[in-house]
Amino acid sequence: MYERYWQQAGDKTSLLISGWHSMSYFSDVKNLCWFLEPQFAKEVIRLHDIVGNAVTMDRHIVVGTGSTQLFQAALYALSSPGGTKPISVVSSTPYYSFYRQVVEYLKSGLYTWAGDAAIFDKDEPYIELITSPNNPDGFIRQPIVNRSGGMLIHDFAYYWPQYTPITSPADHEIMLFTVSKTTGHAGMRIGWAIVKDKEVAKRMTKFIELNSIGVSKDSQLRAAKILQAVSDSCEPASDSRNFFENSYHHVAHRWQQLRKAVEESRLFSTPEFPTGFCNYTGRLFSTQPAFAWLKCKDEIENCEDFLRSHKILTRSGKHFGMSLKYVRISMLDRDSNFDLFIKRLSEMRL
Amino acid sequence: MYERYWQQAGDKTSLLISGWHSMSYFSDVKNLCWFLEPQFAKEVIRLHDIVGNAVTMDRHIVVGTGSTQLFQAALYALSSPGGTKPISVVSSTPYYSFYRQVVEYLKSGLYTWAGDAAIFDKDEPYIELITSPNNPDGFIRQPIVNRSGGMLIHDFAYYWPQYTPITSPADHEIMLFTVSKTTGHAGMRIGWAIVKDKEVAKRMTKFIELNSIGVSKDSQLRAAKILQAVSDSCEPASDSRNFFENSYHHVAHRWQQLRKAVEESRLFSTPEFPTGFCNYTGRLFSTQPAFAWLKCKDEIENCEDFLRSHKILTRSGKHFGMSLKYVRISMLDRDSNFDLFIKRLSEMRL
Repeated sequence: MYERYWQQAGDKTSLLISGWHSMSYFSDVKNLCWFLEPQFAKEVIRLHDIVGNAVTMDRHIVVGTGSTQLFQAALYALSSPGGTKPISVVSSTPYYSFYRQVVEYLKSGLYTWAGDAAIFDKDEPYIELITSPNNPDGFIRQPIVNRSGGMLIHDFAYYWPQYTPITSPADHEIMLFTVSKTTGHAGMRIGWAIVKDKEVAKRMTKFIELNSIGVSKDSQLRAAKILQAVSDSCEPASDSRNFFENSYHHVAHRWQQLRKAVEESRLFSTPEFPTGFCNYTGRLFSTQPAFAWLKCKDEIENCEDFLRSHKILTRSGKHFGMSLKYVRISMLDRDSNFDLFIKRLSEMRL
Repeated sequence: MYERYWQQAGDKTSLLISGWHSMSYFSDVKNLCWFLEPQFAKEVIRLHDIVGNAVTMDRHIVVGTGSTQLFQAALYALSSPGGTKPISVVSSTPYYSFYRQVVEYLKSGLYTWAGDAAIFDKDEPYIELITSPNNPDGFIRQPIVNRSGGMLIHDFAYYWPQYTPITSPADHEIMLFTVSKTTGHAGMRIGWAIVKDKEVAKRMTKFIELNSIGVSKDSQLRAAKILQAVSDSCEPASDSRNFFENSYHHVAHRWQQLRKAVEESRLFSTPEFPTGFCNYTGRLFSTQPAFAWLKCKDEIENCEDFLRSHKILTRSGKHFGMSLKYVRISMLDRDSNFDLFIKRLSEMRL
């Protein structure tokens, strides 16, 4: 979806990197996160300050190979290497399906998946994942366990004004962001964490050292250039179209198309979201998520299978801790694919 | 050490990447390793074929965020998720110190560090790491456990003709390489594995998907450009200096300086290496490793402390499963640092 914007932005977002540049493991030996490119950190802070979606003052920035690596770094940082048993990791259903796999794949003795936060009742330390707006269903979320010994990881991949009203600057212990959902550059594999506690930031940095001895400098430099272009486009005097305004209208149009198609087919429903006032845009609007969380009507048992039989590929609700009645559909695909999806959905009958 | 070569190589190794390029997670959906950039894979194969240090025909290439990520991918691929206990991972002392930390940091239930391969005597499956030439001591290595149920990971980071004679194309189940030791570009965080078995390559790819959803495309494209320049420089008609010849002479000169300084100080010894015929250069020479493995004389108990008191930072032998009598010293630092090190070493007295 974002490709066209960047094509139209032209050469000012091109990066030229010489053969002898950025050869060392180190980016800034004086920084706690020694592999963080200063230019990237600067642009991250600038963009958050412009959009107003996160507090950055007196916080530590940790860069990661996408927010997936940072999520694991946070689990490592919050768990106790000397503990006798792994700490429970929970998230409310429907939760981001990948998180469960990532927690489980190495059978770590540090942390273990404990499922739905809503039914977690152990009287012991735990880590709760809060994805807000949530992947897959798009709702704004708060922690729900609220017991002593709880530690929180906030995934704010979608807390940007093309997806949801920016109601206040988020200010939590560990907040994860990713270039892929901010600007569409998934292939860069660049994410960042904003971390309050110095020791937590140090342990996250240690994880990334052990996991991959740092993060691609080339991608950090490219991400810096892209974020800079986004921030520049937000300046009143800019000659570029405001990136978030442009993206907001693109997503809004797609949601209109989706809701119309859902209505015509009479086979599905989609969530309704409350409106909120966005401090960044000065606009009152409802969340318009990067994913559509579709629920099919009673006659259809398995929504994923049914849609596949109509040549629409989705991800079943079962992966998100929910029933087969649900599927998740990306709203950010290329225009041609999205248009085809809408056409097929509109014409669908039982 | 390599920076100067790349500075002199000029603009032909510069990469220009546009804002709208390489945005997707995917590089090649038809490839088993779906995040592998075809251009990078092509240049990897071309370079191995020119140098003759590894068999690439009918093998799978898996790209990683440095060979550190690939090493973990290999551990994941070779261990059994359904196993009742973790598989033992061994390596002969002195072993690369980082490997032990990487095996242990997540307390994985899939694999566990079991120490020195020379004394491993359990009658059960195991994974042996063979680093050749070895880090830290520079010797050519073979597997030494040789029991049934053994699985091998060959780390060939230093099997390049600036460090050691290329005596034959290596041909093992899993072989790891990294741009950082091949060309000096550590900041790219790009490594690659050459893998015989399709299922192993698939599981390594799955690990990288779970660990970081792929590998920076920007760095892969830049690595492709750098490897291309190296291969081009090896062509007979090239107007660039042959990269490996140039690097060989640079390392050879440093080893001469080191051996002279060691002799003058009378406080240390360094390993002597047998000569071998290099099929790539047609030259008979001894391994000249990227690290010097220094042993101090009897009067010095703790070699690291002693050298630190003379303003030389090293890594103690204890990290490599050896005594405090040993230290590891990088031979690839910038010229100015290396010259200062040689000066201090030469003037050192008890």
